[in-house]
Amino acid sequence: MSDAIKAATLEYATRLGDDSVVLGHRISEWVSYGPFLEEDIAYGNVALDYIGRARMFYTYAAELADDGRTEDDFAYMRSDREYRNLLLMEMPKGDFAYSQVRQLFADVYYTLVLPQLLHSKDETLSAIAAKGIKETKYHLRRSREWVLRLGDGTEESHKRTQKAVDSLWGYTHELFDMDETEQMLADAGIAVDVSKLRDEWHKMVSDILTEATLTVPEDSWAVRGGRTGYHTENLGHMLTEMQITHRSYPGCQW
Amino acid sequence: MSDAIKAATLEYATRLGDDSVVLGHRISEWVSYGPFLEEDIAYGNVALDYIGRARMFYTYAAELADDGRTEDDFAYMRSDREYRNLLLMEMPKGDFAYSQVRQLFADVYYTLVLPQLLHSKDETLSAIAAKGIKETKYHLRRSREWVLRLGDGTEESHKRTQKAVDSLWGYTHELFDMDETEQMLADAGIAVDVSKLRDEWHKMVSDILTEATLTVPEDSWAVRGGRTGYHTENLGHMLTEMQITHRSYPGCQW
Repeated sequence: MSDAIKAATLEYATRLGDDSVVLGHRISEWVSYGPFLEEDIAYGNVALDYIGRARMFYTYAAELADDGRTEDDFAYMRSDREYRNLLLMEMPKGDFAYSQVRQLFADVYYTLVLPQLLHSKDETLSAIAAKGIKETKYHLRRSREWVLRLGDGTEESHKRTQKAVDSLWGYTHELFDMDETEQMLADAGIAVDVSKLRDEWHKMVSDILTEATLTVPEDSWAVRGGRTGYHTENLGHMLTEMQITHRSYPGCQW
Repeated sequence: MSDAIKAATLEYATRLGDDSVVLGHRISEWVSYGPFLEEDIAYGNVALDYIGRARMFYTYAAELADDGRTEDDFAYMRSDREYRNLLLMEMPKGDFAYSQVRQLFADVYYTLVLPQLLHSKDETLSAIAAKGIKETKYHLRRSREWVLRLGDGTEESHKRTQKAVDSLWGYTHELFDMDETEQMLADAGIAVDVSKLRDEWHKMVSDILTEATLTVPEDSWAVRGGRTGYHTENLGHMLTEMQITHRSYPGCQW
């Protein structure tokens, strides 16, 4: 592996790890607040899938960095400005409709991204994708059902779900951005060219929203910045909570 | 100063510092959220008074400890279980009525405590009290006016203020508890015997609540634990936010 490819792969694995740990943490905020016990446990398991995925990406990043850092350093010792996750993942928990709509957007995204990543020439990334594909099938079934149920539910649930769709829509464009790093890796057969997935994502999401009697928003606004470290105010507060134990007991082991 | 008195004074200064920093932080949470600009600035200044007072108590505690710790170590490097503040101070921000009622309870308390502490045989504690007395006169004028205005205001403001009074009342009993440490210091003429202040506090607070058309609650419940490190769930979250910068950049200086 050339030095340039190695550095880019480290960056790429970190980005994917950041997406996973941030979304996983957000989902974990629902633990004990689910609408009923079965759902509470199910959503907690989704959180664990994402946190587990983050661990795999970070472990690989640490291996590539080869500078003594571990997965924990990646998760717990970087500031919000050093995080590279997509903004969609860091948006707050909101109400249940808000979290489920975000989940649907993310689940459809991974439904398209992971099968591509499976074909990566990088064997580690491919292996992580293989595990993720199975999980995502279950995740999407769940979030799709919730969006259908809430969108095509009561007047109140419909209103809240539509509001969530409208509020989150402008954060989805960033999911399909490519920069030099990812383009170089895509050209080398390592990274996914996400720019090619937008149309399919839009179609899949639109079909589900329409079935849920919801309106697909116009593309009237977009916020970007996560991949370059420019985050919403939500991430700093989230990382504060996520990192305080590790930062309070540095180097502490179980 | 005997070793026993010195250790007790260190503990006492830490307790008073904890009360001040926790209440100061809670007030600071109102900055930029005040009902109007003048009030926003005024309340921010009250926060600064309390944080300034905490610094003096902690600096004295660090001097007595004489083990290399500084005021920052006391504020930023102790966990919630190590904090010794009164529970009243850590209760969340709540709505404006809630914060003003808590403020009234605290301001009347310090109106009674600080003139006693002024007569402490410990010159440092006496000097801190002298500064605090002037501040507290202004603080009480402010919180008293707010409670009158809110209690004797609209139906909504009255309802919220009464609810705040009822919610916070059970946390006020702890303000007048004495333990062995404080009793020893009180006997030595150093600490304030707060157990003797409860009746006067009750009378002053009752007069203000009555004037505000509010009902003085019965003493039907009481929660204690702050002085022994058993806190409500609120303190841990608050300290997380308060300590993250210091814990993220250990030893960092301006």
